[in-house]
Amino acid sequence: MKKHSQEVEVSGHLIDSMILTKVFDKIMNRGGEFEILDLKVGIKKKDSSYVKLLVTGKDAKHLQEITDDIHREGVIPVIEKPIKLQKAPKDMVMPDNFYSTTNNETWVLHNKKWIKVKNQMMDKCIVIKGNDFFCVPIRDIKKGDQIIVDDIGVKVNPPQRPRDEANIFEFMGSSSSSERPTQHIAKKVAQDIIQTKKAGGKIIIVGGPAIVHTGAASSVAELIKSGYIDGVLAGNALAVHDIENATLGTSLGMYVKDASLAKRGYRNHMDTINAVFKVGSIPKMVKAGKLKSGIFYECVKKNIPFVLAGSIRDDGPLPDVITDMTIAQREYKKVLKDASMVIMISTMLHSIATGNMLPSNVKVVVIDISQPTVTKLMDRGTWQALGIVSDVGAFLPMIIQHIKKMK
Amino acid sequence: MKKHSQEVEVSGHLIDSMILTKVFDKIMNRGGEFEILDLKVGIKKKDSSYVKLLVTGKDAKHLQEITDDIHREGVIPVIEKPIKLQKAPKDMVMPDNFYSTTNNETWVLHNKKWIKVKNQMMDKCIVIKGNDFFCVPIRDIKKGDQIIVDDIGVKVNPPQRPRDEANIFEFMGSSSSSERPTQHIAKKVAQDIIQTKKAGGKIIIVGGPAIVHTGAASSVAELIKSGYIDGVLAGNALAVHDIENATLGTSLGMYVKDASLAKRGYRNHMDTINAVFKVGSIPKMVKAGKLKSGIFYECVKKNIPFVLAGSIRDDGPLPDVITDMTIAQREYKKVLKDASMVIMISTMLHSIATGNMLPSNVKVVVIDISQPTVTKLMDRGTWQALGIVSDVGAFLPMIIQHIKKMK
Amino acid sequence: MKKHSQEVEVSGHLIDSMILTKVFDKIMNRGGEFEILDLKVGIKKKDSSYVKLLVTGKDAKHLQEITDDIHREGVIPVIEKPIKLQKAPKDMVMPDNFYSTTNNETWVLHNKKWIKVKNQMMDKCIVIKGNDFFCVPIRDIKKGDQIIVDDIGVKVNPPQRPRDEANIFEFMGSSSSSERPTQHIAKKVAQDIIQTKKAGGKIIIVGGPAIVHTGAASSVAELIKSGYIDGVLAGNALAVHDIENATLGTSLGMYVKDASLAKRGYRNHMDTINAVFKVGSIPKMVKAGKLKSGIFYECVKKNIPFVLAGSIRDDGPLPDVITDMTIAQREYKKVLKDASMVIMISTMLHSIATGNMLPSNVKVVVIDISQPTVTKLMDRGTWQALGIVSDVGAFLPMIIQHIKKMK
Amino acid sequence: MKKHSQEVEVSGHLIDSMILTKVFDKIMNRGGEFEILDLKVGIKKKDSSYVKLLVTGKDAKHLQEITDDIHREGVIPVIEKPIKLQKAPKDMVMPDNFYSTTNNETWVLHNKKWIKVKNQMMDKCIVIKGNDFFCVPIRDIKKGDQIIVDDIGVKVNPPQRPRDEANIFEFMGSSSSSERPTQHIAKKVAQDIIQTKKAGGKIIIVGGPAIVHTGAASSVAELIKSGYIDGVLAGNALAVHDIENATLGTSLGMYVKDASLAKRGYRNHMDTINAVFKVGSIPKMVKAGKLKSGIFYECVKKNIPFVLAGSIRDDGPLPDVITDMTIAQREYKKVLKDASMVIMISTMLHSIATGNMLPSNVKVVVIDISQPTVTKLMDRGTWQALGIVSDVGAFLPMIIQHIKKMK
Repeated sequence: MKKHSQEVEVSGHLIDSMILTKVFDKIMNRGGEFEILDLKVGIKKKDSSYVKLLVTGKDAKHLQEITDDIHREGVIPVIEKPIKLQKAPKDMVMPDNFYSTTNNETWVLHNKKWIKVKNQMMDKCIVIKGNDFFCVPIRDIKKGDQIIVDDIGVKVNPPQRPRDEANIFEFMGSSSSSERPTQHIAKKVAQDIIQTKKAGGKIIIVGGPAIVHTGAASSVAELIKSGYIDGVLAGNALAVHDIENATLGTSLGMYVKDASLAKRGYRNHMDTINAVFKVGSIPKMVKAGKLKSGIFYECVKKNIPFVLAGSIRDDGPLPDVITDMTIAQREYKKVLKDASMVIMISTMLHSIATGNMLPSNVKVVVIDISQPTVTKLMDRGTWQALGIVSDVGAFLPMIIQHIKKMK
Repeated sequence: MKKHSQEVEVSGHLIDSMILTKVFDKIMNRGGEFEILDLKVGIKKKDSSYVKLLVTGKDAKHLQEITDDIHREGVIPVIEKPIKLQKAPKDMVMPDNFYSTTNNETWVLHNKKWIKVKNQMMDKCIVIKGNDFFCVPIRDIKKGDQIIVDDIGVKVNPPQRPRDEANIFEFMGSSSSSERPTQHIAKKVAQDIIQTKKAGGKIIIVGGPAIVHTGAASSVAELIKSGYIDGVLAGNALAVHDIENATLGTSLGMYVKDASLAKRGYRNHMDTINAVFKVGSIPKMVKAGKLKSGIFYECVKKNIPFVLAGSIRDDGPLPDVITDMTIAQREYKKVLKDASMVIMISTMLHSIATGNMLPSNVKVVVIDISQPTVTKLMDRGTWQALGIVSDVGAFLPMIIQHIKKMK
Repeated sequence: MKKHSQEVEVSGHLIDSMILTKVFDKIMNRGGEFEILDLKVGIKKKDSSYVKLLVTGKDAKHLQEITDDIHREGVIPVIEKPIKLQKAPKDMVMPDNFYSTTNNETWVLHNKKWIKVKNQMMDKCIVIKGNDFFCVPIRDIKKGDQIIVDDIGVKVNPPQRPRDEANIFEFMGSSSSSERPTQHIAKKVAQDIIQTKKAGGKIIIVGGPAIVHTGAASSVAELIKSGYIDGVLAGNALAVHDIENATLGTSLGMYVKDASLAKRGYRNHMDTINAVFKVGSIPKMVKAGKLKSGIFYECVKKNIPFVLAGSIRDDGPLPDVITDMTIAQREYKKVLKDASMVIMISTMLHSIATGNMLPSNVKVVVIDISQPTVTKLMDRGTWQALGIVSDVGAFLPMIIQHIKKMK
Repeated sequence: MKKHSQEVEVSGHLIDSMILTKVFDKIMNRGGEFEILDLKVGIKKKDSSYVKLLVTGKDAKHLQEITDDIHREGVIPVIEKPIKLQKAPKDMVMPDNFYSTTNNETWVLHNKKWIKVKNQMMDKCIVIKGNDFFCVPIRDIKKGDQIIVDDIGVKVNPPQRPRDEANIFEFMGSSSSSERPTQHIAKKVAQDIIQTKKAGGKIIIVGGPAIVHTGAASSVAELIKSGYIDGVLAGNALAVHDIENATLGTSLGMYVKDASLAKRGYRNHMDTINAVFKVGSIPKMVKAGKLKSGIFYECVKKNIPFVLAGSIRDDGPLPDVITDMTIAQREYKKVLKDASMVIMISTMLHSIATGNMLPSNVKVVVIDISQPTVTKLMDRGTWQALGIVSDVGAFLPMIIQHIKKMK
């Protein structure tokens, strides 16, 4: 058997984003060899680096395995080849060797041009439509769709760990901990919210019902009212709790203002659902003057889109809830389009769902009291997330205080 | 203002189930008074107790508040009055003062007979159909349905804490802890499974994908193959992971047998989904000889029903997944009908969903490595649950070992 | 064999403190029988209840087992017998049948008088000295000490769950949860601190190093400065971190104000320890003008006692740390004497230690981000504790804000 | 101001241990510049790499800051200078600029030879005694001791991530997770134990009382009996629980075999302590034939050293417990000397203590049901640890099963 070699290259923040480490690691793990043909390390923090390697495998197949593996770190052959396309044999069936996407910015070489893939999401295939390429979920594949197979002609831009001091994402990287200075982190998140809005960015909140239980609903409502939020993604529970709180003062029958139990408070949850069904929807409830405060009131008033995705555990659910998950995913994606920052609060389900839909360059802040939840979310591929292990009921009011001071 | 009094009574395991404590507590919390007119305490463990009280409030309204409150502990007036019915004003809208159900066995006084309510579930209303009464979710209410309002003529049987030594539910009550003798608990769960089946009972498993990650899929498959399981409730993730494991040996690209990473293993997840879409469904995959082991293979082979409920975070999802939550809830309920025991493994979402659908006399075992998850589930009203904080990958094989020894 | 019976009685908050339930439960669990001879239930919240029972066992030994068991709920024979005493056979050895104490108020019948035991603590024996009785740890037993054996003549006052609305301990009982309204809980704790001080009570803080990491050191320092705190119990780590923070601005080398890393910051921890050794002690450091802020600065300035108990994991430890645990326990007890309220913050080790030393009528507040930690502490017998699952770095500043508003 | 430059070099597993990444990162974070003068990357997994850099700072002081920082990654000047020594001004006081050690292997240049430092531990200073250099804790410093200051002439060997497939430490690196195949991990740990012993290595167990609560004491006892363990480090609680279990069958009064409560079981804990005090010590109890099984029985029988370190929360403590922490730390270190592998089970306190005493090349396995505990331990600098989030009561018996199969 004869050894096979190939010249490959990659550029970007190779050092601080640990890309070089991963590339060397993967080659050696596969039993391959490499020679560094060229290495330019960016001197300044924001400078890009470049490396050209000669990778050698035991034979053609072995070499292929190695280059497959490092492909996902952004490494491509020096001699570029165009993508290969194959037709979907049936509706909802991809060709066997379909290229499975990452959540990283992806470029494809087609007609001698590098074209950026649109709707970047994880674990999808890439379909050509006209001159554009799109990430498409399996259920939307139509028979005959032209789908990229193999990874030839595909270039991934692995996430670059940013380093400029102005934003919170740098000082902690992807780690999460409950042993960080809370005040400072709240301040940084506040700064980041303000700066993102100043720069014309779009901020989406993904939230769970603990926001209401812990008394932080008014903080979220205030963020929306003040114009910082461009969309709310949640499930049935957040909406029911928020409206129960806004209309009856309780969350599952417990008064949020003093934690006492309401008389026949166990009925409040179902009463709230019934109240929304009576008028027909949350926006109608606002129009009818029956909902006058809270997260969803502010959404309706400010005309901020919200999407409530159903789940198997829902009571009701409210008429506004989308019970079909295929449709709900589409509506989530619409709201997330071009988001600059997503703040995920106390909901593993909707946070993971949202994380799967986001390209890796969107800033993500995850706030939850449970460290394993924060860790799990980041392990699921949303590793650009900033994990904050804190008590939502204390942390969100702190953000509001800082925002007020900064204005 | 004149004081108002009423004679009320309740019977059952008043002492060990702490019902008496709660009744006295609630009367005093509302500022009421009471006199014990009669008290018979069961001497033997299984004997029932009985108490008759004269409850006194400051006025009629106050007395009503008190009796409302103790009603949920099973206390009813000595002089019985029949239920009151009112019509649903619209589809999916209940009358204002609708009776909101608990998950406890409920009886209603109608035409001078006490009638047991069917399909007992939490947070529903009660509708009369012919001579039967049913718990009905709000989305299934039709205009004109006769719905019980108020709580007059309704009697609740609060859950009785069983005490005979043969089953595991007694030795721990509802508490959960990671500091219990694991071997012993596994043995008790094994005994309970065997006894439940001997008694002709129905056992349902509710499971999450950690079953596969931790290497416990073969244990669950063996339980099904051996005839202990009568239904599996899950989501898309468990099915995809189980089939990936059965066909490719990996879970999200990691070999379960030795935790090594498969070549291009990141594709395995999507490849599995594509493989099912190709043949059309999980049962078809079994018939085509392409799925030969695992949880869902055994379900198909043994003709055990399984329901996969979609969620907003699904990849794919598989063709077998029900994406509309309203339908998925109905299918879950069908499988849960007349269940004697439900084993919930590493999935908060589906466990809470299932808990909400179960009457309080069904045995529930919750196994999860996270204590807060176990606590949260029990706080949500499924308080008859036995919480086991353990590592699913080590605990399930232990159950299998004990079952084999016992046979 | 002839059945044996005995008349027993107990009074107190039998219903709301669930004492009656536990007594009935224990008799039945042991296979005994009982007849209710008298039962008076207090009508008002603060009224005491009384019950007289005739307990019957299969024989004298069986009856003894039963009465032993209910003894710990405060039940005593109607016909009172005096205590029995026996001598310690050696230093540090108790007589075989020594009475092992609970943390509940305990009374002993001696010379026809009921005498209250002093220094009430859990898991100790009771020694008579003159006319007084003391809880004494095993290491302090001297040969010949007169020690109570058996449980005859000993009466326990099981903890009474208080119910008046003015203090936080009622609204939550002993449960802990991260899903409570944080703002409200912080306000209640603030009220309780103020009221305890107004009533002349003594408040002790037990704290761990996360106070400094999370940026809450200034909040604790402010509580001390404002005169709310009467003692601080901690270990080496809190002191080193607090002084590192006060002198260098960092906690383990990370600036608390902005979470950036100090130059050669890894040295700051050891540098701080060296700095204290140089002057000789924390108080000398304050006198020398080298420590000018922080928790321990305020303690020295206000002349508030603090005790630092060593542990096997200490770096250094500081000269102020008591490295012998037998001595450290004594010093902790001195500070805890007559405490009305103990606030435990982010330290399982010192919190459990302190919990073991406290009689059950002392108010305990436990604040930690980890629910299992809070649960574990309460399971260890300190069940009167109020558990708060929150982020110390956000929660303590919230308490300070509420205290300022209230003044 | 004139720029200053220095040639520096480092060798080792620069790529896979991410040393190169950290070095580049640190230089750039400090605003420095660098040029790669030489870079040789090891091709095979075990090959070492080498890099020579020209580092440039704005001025001499800036350059010093940069080289200080990268020093801890093992980088040293190409032109070697000898160490500088300074005298301790007082007992227990180090010179101001003392060199603060890491837990990594450290070499010092003295009399033109590179000498390896002995007793390598974290956060100590280095003292010369004759021709040897020792890590010395602050409390052992004597006035006049010659202590290394600055970091000139000191070379650190940062921990090298091993990569050969035979041991478990590779497949997971330092990460911990509850979502790994438990069976496989148990098998790997079993293999590692066997191989370590075959290679003549020394294995130490560090354990907490949950070992007994969860029913795993017999597994640990069997490991000791079979000759796999060379030392046990624990506190009072593990010993008391183990002896209570061995003599009375209970752990805190609960029978471990069936989780039932013993009669007067609350006395068992103190009874056990009293029983040991009666005979005088654990070894005497074994000799007297009163302790016949369990962890500490096996230690005594096999003449395996055990050290029990006291803590502020101890009951008793047992006569075998060392109550002075300064002494206890010394005894721990004696047992840990030349250990090859340390297995830490369910005890944060003793695990962190032990972690602080270990050089970074010792294999560490941490088993705990709480992910935050595992994470915290690794964050504390013991980052070479393999974290296993599992249920000790199920995981340890699994290890025993695998060891039996392998023999």
